[in-house]
Amino acid sequence: MTRFDQTAADAAAARQAQLTKPPGSLGRLEDLAVFMAGWQGTDRPRLDRVQALVFAGNHGVTAQGITPFPPAVTAGMVANFDAGGAAINQLCRVAGADLGVVALDLDRPTADFTQGPAMTMAEVAEAMARGANAVDPQAQVLLLGEMGIGNSTVSAALAAACFGGRAEDWVGPGTGAHGDMLAAKVRVVTEGLARHAVTGTRDTLAAFGGREQAAICGAILRARDLRIPVILDGFICTAAAGVLTCDDPDVLAHCLIGHESAEPGHRRLIAALGMPPVLSLDMRLGEGSGAAVALLVLRAALECHNGMATFAEAGLV
Amino acid sequence: MTRFDQTAADAAAARQAQLTKPPGSLGRLEDLAVFMAGWQGTDRPRLDRVQALVFAGNHGVTAQGITPFPPAVTAGMVANFDAGGAAINQLCRVAGADLGVVALDLDRPTADFTQGPAMTMAEVAEAMARGANAVDPQAQVLLLGEMGIGNSTVSAALAAACFGGRAEDWVGPGTGAHGDMLAAKVRVVTEGLARHAVTGTRDTLAAFGGREQAAICGAILRARDLRIPVILDGFICTAAAGVLTCDDPDVLAHCLIGHESAEPGHRRLIAALGMPPVLSLDMRLGEGSGAAVALLVLRAALECHNGMATFAEAGLV
Repeated sequence: MTRFDQTAADAAAARQAQLTKPPGSLGRLEDLAVFMAGWQGTDRPRLDRVQALVFAGNHGVTAQGITPFPPAVTAGMVANFDAGGAAINQLCRVAGADLGVVALDLDRPTADFTQGPAMTMAEVAEAMARGANAVDPQAQVLLLGEMGIGNSTVSAALAAACFGGRAEDWVGPGTGAHGDMLAAKVRVVTEGLARHAVTGTRDTLAAFGGREQAAICGAILRARDLRIPVILDGFICTAAAGVLTCDDPDVLAHCLIGHESAEPGHRRLIAALGMPPVLSLDMRLGEGSGAAVALLVLRAALECHNGMATFAEAGLV
Repeated sequence: MTRFDQTAADAAAARQAQLTKPPGSLGRLEDLAVFMAGWQGTDRPRLDRVQALVFAGNHGVTAQGITPFPPAVTAGMVANFDAGGAAINQLCRVAGADLGVVALDLDRPTADFTQGPAMTMAEVAEAMARGANAVDPQAQVLLLGEMGIGNSTVSAALAAACFGGRAEDWVGPGTGAHGDMLAAKVRVVTEGLARHAVTGTRDTLAAFGGREQAAICGAILRARDLRIPVILDGFICTAAAGVLTCDDPDVLAHCLIGHESAEPGHRRLIAALGMPPVLSLDMRLGEGSGAAVALLVLRAALECHNGMATFAEAGLV
């Protein structure tokens, strides 16, 4: 597995110490510049080419009455992405990311995980490969997002399977489940956890799904091979990424969590992973929307890092 | 005093409810779009023309050994702003703001507030007018920032005078005061508070200074007259703005706090004003740097607000 380039990171940190500001006064922006330097392997990291990938999938567990939207909305939103009308389209434009949307067999939902495994191991491998193959090898940072009616339920199951706790600890309203519908989510996740004994990344994905979660995992591993830093989105994206840590606790070292979602399980996931989010804006949309806003902060960080004068250059020594 | 246009804000909120996302799922981005609509007086607020103003001043209280940097650094940093080498230059470029720097009589520091009033009432009025006159009447949002060696000490005194509490509650390291230097800041602020009995905006500014704080106040009042929403920066900028609330508790209704600074007094100011910051990135530079990063979030908010398809437009009804 590729490693953080400590030499490049140290050179970036040394540059930060010479820029015309009190040491450390740019806070998180300084940390982000050093992080990017280590993963891009240069003391002057750049963001000329940024890819955003949104993976979409459908989930058989929606038959259990766990979401206010019908599964057809997944394809409807993919059409909206393709037409440029969704939040992620606007956010990628303003933040300067090339958006790619990968619809994963939307007419072939994964199986209901309360009845059996959501996917076969072959289906997991195929979805992971589609995620990996979608990554632009020239990208300087990769944003990940998702769309899939029912996938906050799947994510709660994945998070509980990987990090422990009860269904109630991880289930939240998602796109708007309350009352009986929220209770159904808890019941479904509880049943799923009782049914499936899982230990690793791939069997966990097979047990609960879904295709977009497996694709996210594949893209993260491919980005690591390519030393491309990754910005994860909210609860669903982070839960998918978290499944990779079953096999290797260091696997997300090249990833940032773009924002802390308003979906309550996200805070717990963030704590379990020990990865402080860049932003906290009470967002809970998915699509990679929080990752795209975080990209703006990353741009601010690198503009300062690369563009500021040193004390010597400014004659302030 | 001009008022928030509730009709425009309601129209913007109604539009948000029709966009292709679960209601409320863009969180703070939705609030920001509605806020901008109310102050710009249109349901489709825009950011084509953004002004950032950085006011710089010097402070006689620096003679008390309260800061690691000599007062000459204020002029040095103004030269750095003019040359394009500071953080605020990079951040204004990436966030799309026109930067104006107003150096306020840097060779004529305000008087040491432990010895007497920092400024005469005439000097307060002049500095407020310079702030007001610097505002671009065509700006669609105004960012405010400051530079002034010693001004975190002045800000602690202003905050204590306006909001109560002891010097220790408001004094922090600023650009890097620790140990004896931090103790000197507390002593100086304690002495200043004992010497000056103040009740309103102008006499508080006269007592403690400084010119850049008065200019910030003048710019905020002028922006309010022009219905231009304002993004405040961190501790020093917010402390200056807070002085206006001595005369009118509603005076900052058109203002946002761009970020929560790492300077410890800022959290207390935010609580006193009841204004949640847009960002929290552990920044503590000043110059308007946090306001400029917050502008990026505002751009993200308005891109979504103006650019997203409604459910009807996307055929998702």
